[in-house]
Amino acid sequence: MAIHTAVQSSCDVKEKAMTTTETKALYLEDIALGDRYVSREYPLDAGQIKDFARAFDPQPFHLDEAAARASFFGALAASGWHTAAVTMRLMVESVPFAGGLIGASVELSWPRPTRPGDTLHVESTITGIAPSKSKPDRGLVSLQSETVNQNGEPVQKLVSKLLLFRRPEEARADARSRG
Amino acid sequence: MAIHTAVQSSCDVKEKAMTTTETKALYLEDIALGDRYVSREYPLDAGQIKDFARAFDPQPFHLDEAAARASFFGALAASGWHTAAVTMRLMVESVPFAGGLIGASVELSWPRPTRPGDTLHVESTITGIAPSKSKPDRGLVSLQSETVNQNGEPVQKLVSKLLLFRRPEEARADARSRG
Repeated sequence: MAIHTAVQSSCDVKEKAMTTTETKALYLEDIALGDRYVSREYPLDAGQIKDFARAFDPQPFHLDEAAARASFFGALAASGWHTAAVTMRLMVESVPFAGGLIGASVELSWPRPTRPGDTLHVESTITGIAPSKSKPDRGLVSLQSETVNQNGEPVQKLVSKLLLFRRPEEARADARSRG
Repeated sequence: MAIHTAVQSSCDVKEKAMTTTETKALYLEDIALGDRYVSREYPLDAGQIKDFARAFDPQPFHLDEAAARASFFGALAASGWHTAAVTMRLMVESVPFAGGLIGASVELSWPRPTRPGDTLHVESTITGIAPSKSKPDRGLVSLQSETVNQNGEPVQKLVSKLLLFRRPEEARADARSRG
């Protein structure tokens, strides 16, 4: 089990960006249940929230402060799909899977809205590793990712099933000859 | 059961945009299991795919044709989160729920990639209606939405749990006095 972090956090020190401690691309045999990946922080303002909403989720509570106050949300809120997109950006930067992050399916929930002025980061944990029976070069990895605001409150919970490849035979042979 | 459509489709005629046949905002008591909503078409080009990827999913197979050819995807592919965002745009336009589309949670899968030049539309069907026991003014609606390309192939399957309100008492009283 390992913790890969692009952000160092503690209870009483404000989180600050750090370089990733591990930059090596990870194959299926390199990961273990419980491995964690922590992203940098991502600040979100009202302009970004409205730009995204205008393109992809043009509902009044994502576009206009006064309309949002009169709505279910009580104040301007980011589209859940904007929170999801920002989460992906942070995962791409913080989860160093070889071949990239290739999602097969996901489950998503939004326990509370993302608001203008929020600063988000993402904490991802490996919760499942299932080698493929039919395709021996790959497996499906379950990754649980919580997107958290500056108050430590989760704004999104995501469970992803990601395709991850085994280390290619060439690499194995190369490692053996060097060993 | 009703079909609300912003697009008319048939087997041999190319789909074309139409005005929505139903513009009234729908409350919880206005919907039924099996009700369907069909969106307009949304064309997606390589520029849009790369712009979205640059902001939210900067992986080589979403950004660069040559890198994509050498990848799992075999050719440039849209981020799944881009397909999801476009789907939301089309749902906002085609599912006329009173108070808007407010998602509590979703399940998503991408059976095949979205490619440059694809034209997408979304077909949504109500598959569940659960009035809230604790909050009598609302319920949770399950909506199954398939995002389909120009060849009739699904590129995304989405099941959403959406919050939908009952018609306000004022509206009921008003309807009674008019009835």
